[in-house]
Amino acid sequence: MKIVVLKFGGTSVGTIKKIKRVADIIVKHKKKNDKVIVISSAMSGVTNELIKKSFEISDSFSDVEHDVLVSSGEQVACSLIAGRLIHKGYKSRSWLSWQVPIITKGDHKNSRIKQINKKKIIKYLKEGGIPIITGFQGVNNENRITSLGRGGSDASAIMIAKFFKARKCIIYTDVEGVYTTDPNKLKKAKKIKEISYEEMLEMASLGAKVMQPVSIQDARLNRIDIEVKSSFTKKPGTLITKRSNIINNKIVTGISSTQNDSKITLIGVKDKPGVAAAIFKPLSKNSINVDMVVQNISANGKETDLTFTIKTEDLKKTKKIINENNNIKFRKLLFKKDVSKISVIGVGMIATPGVTFRMFQTLANKKINIQVISTSEIKISVLIDKKNIKKALIALHKEFKLHIQK
Amino acid sequence: MKIVVLKFGGTSVGTIKKIKRVADIIVKHKKKNDKVIVISSAMSGVTNELIKKSFEISDSFSDVEHDVLVSSGEQVACSLIAGRLIHKGYKSRSWLSWQVPIITKGDHKNSRIKQINKKKIIKYLKEGGIPIITGFQGVNNENRITSLGRGGSDASAIMIAKFFKARKCIIYTDVEGVYTTDPNKLKKAKKIKEISYEEMLEMASLGAKVMQPVSIQDARLNRIDIEVKSSFTKKPGTLITKRSNIINNKIVTGISSTQNDSKITLIGVKDKPGVAAAIFKPLSKNSINVDMVVQNISANGKETDLTFTIKTEDLKKTKKIINENNNIKFRKLLFKKDVSKISVIGVGMIATPGVTFRMFQTLANKKINIQVISTSEIKISVLIDKKNIKKALIALHKEFKLHIQK
Repeated sequence: MKIVVLKFGGTSVGTIKKIKRVADIIVKHKKKNDKVIVISSAMSGVTNELIKKSFEISDSFSDVEHDVLVSSGEQVACSLIAGRLIHKGYKSRSWLSWQVPIITKGDHKNSRIKQINKKKIIKYLKEGGIPIITGFQGVNNENRITSLGRGGSDASAIMIAKFFKARKCIIYTDVEGVYTTDPNKLKKAKKIKEISYEEMLEMASLGAKVMQPVSIQDARLNRIDIEVKSSFTKKPGTLITKRSNIINNKIVTGISSTQNDSKITLIGVKDKPGVAAAIFKPLSKNSINVDMVVQNISANGKETDLTFTIKTEDLKKTKKIINENNNIKFRKLLFKKDVSKISVIGVGMIATPGVTFRMFQTLANKKINIQVISTSEIKISVLIDKKNIKKALIALHKEFKLHIQK
Repeated sequence: MKIVVLKFGGTSVGTIKKIKRVADIIVKHKKKNDKVIVISSAMSGVTNELIKKSFEISDSFSDVEHDVLVSSGEQVACSLIAGRLIHKGYKSRSWLSWQVPIITKGDHKNSRIKQINKKKIIKYLKEGGIPIITGFQGVNNENRITSLGRGGSDASAIMIAKFFKARKCIIYTDVEGVYTTDPNKLKKAKKIKEISYEEMLEMASLGAKVMQPVSIQDARLNRIDIEVKSSFTKKPGTLITKRSNIINNKIVTGISSTQNDSKITLIGVKDKPGVAAAIFKPLSKNSINVDMVVQNISANGKETDLTFTIKTEDLKKTKKIINENNNIKFRKLLFKKDVSKISVIGVGMIATPGVTFRMFQTLANKKINIQVISTSEIKISVLIDKKNIKKALIALHKEFKLHIQK
């Protein structure tokens, strides 16, 4: 059974007019004779409106009832989509997560899909039906409604694709795909035709707007091709697939950058096991997200310098935590606001020597000072002054020929 | 197990502020140590908003998906009520109809409750929990969500009271109870303390605003006391109970009146079996609601005159149907717009001779002409000119001492 999974995000079903367009898209797929399974989010704005109500009821609204509350949003969207398809003469129906059922485990507001009972849906597909399944939710083993947390509808779509062994999962959203860099920061940014899971994961700062990393990782593990595209145009989107499927592998696929970062350097930290943990554990406890971490090999074998970046909004709190922490010994704390991380990402750089050099040379030519460097197999990240970010983006985008997409 | 069922209508849960007040009312009952089961409607306006959306999707929106769509409204209300009770420190949770489950039969949009599985709810009550159950809905034997049609939340409440053998069902709404007559028509109208099921059924034109007749009939058959009261005041409401429970039985309990009626008289109808059916069948088919029907015994045994009332908005259509119906023979069709039916209702009149006379004399004293008379065991209805309705209401209300309620 050749199955394609279509997932529609909140903006794609945000109005009645848009829901009608979604039904047209579904029909187009159905006419290609695929077995089509549809997953829908709630109409945009609805979930936030419901959450607002829950806060008015209680500033510590029950997690269990929160899931009952918000899951109603997908129920509405799915019934409207199914209703439209029926209107157009197709066999369709809404499937609420408890009707499938989609079994989850874990806490309310942050559950994960454990099992999907395929029997009823398979029967329905064989009868020619188009199932419209509520995204973002499931039922736990106590028969209570659960929600999957942020990006939950993507998780639903990927897991359904996994359990039904779908050849492809198409994520319809309000962007046309994944871009070489943020089009809001660089006009010359181009839509990427094909990108590997690994690159997509590394491009989290770009990718997160399109899909949550955890869903990309699930797709990678289950070898599900994802196409990200807009429900508002007919243009092709971006295919996220395994490396070996990508024919025109470029050296660098995309460039991501951050904003509003701050850098902290601890001078003269004791170079012994457990020091890094002692520093970062209290930060993690306080929900401070530490990004780049760089530690040089100590020259004298006793002391070292440790540098890391955080969001500038967390700077004050971070300094306080470190200064008040008696478990950490260091000589001096330096900090710098207004730094940005710029990363070039590409699986091609594994096989291509000299990418690091080209990146550094490009920045040097523009007289942009590199403050910190961190590399992974398929990514090179550098920390630069925030004021240079635009200049760096333009130069690197040109150097790696990202404005040319075949 | 002493159980009380509390039902809250849409206006009672219409805002967050009102939902908080509802939670306070529930707590008050819980403190009396009753086992409390709560049924809630959707927040007022929500159901209509959803139905509006469905019409925008399709002018013949699927009945099945309609039920999925609208049932989300009660889900939202119930989770918010439960969330508020949890906030206040009580053990509470929402119970969606499929979680109980509440099994229905019949068509979508108009199902009836067939069975309620009590096990889980009884267990939950014994644990001290306050279950908040979605009104207006159930699941059918295909595991699809169904809705109960107009006044469906009342039906849910009465059926739950029946299955759980509750001693009482309190209907919280936006009116303070049942009145001796419509307070909008007569300022002196008084709230009735106690009324029998039968009287309540006869007072349909008053009662329909409070409860659908079918729910009153279900309560009567199952001997469930209903209290109708406002969720906005602390005043006692109206108790609907069996005749023998009512101590201060008055001769007349209430007066109802209609507006915008028209009267049609067919002169010289053949007095033989099947004639009435031939007249009313096509009207029924065209959804024309026939109210009073009066036929005199024919003087000559061959012909008779038949009078009936309809809503004035249906007059034109009704005349057309009758005139074009070759199966009906009559000499002349007379009609009159702007008539009103006024009815005095009371179980007391069974045992009290002369009520009919007192009613007619009262109207005669005010020089109000009676056009048609129709009586039942506990109701006397007369048709009068619409312009006299206020005068008649005042006079009859006074004659039967309805302004005095002990």
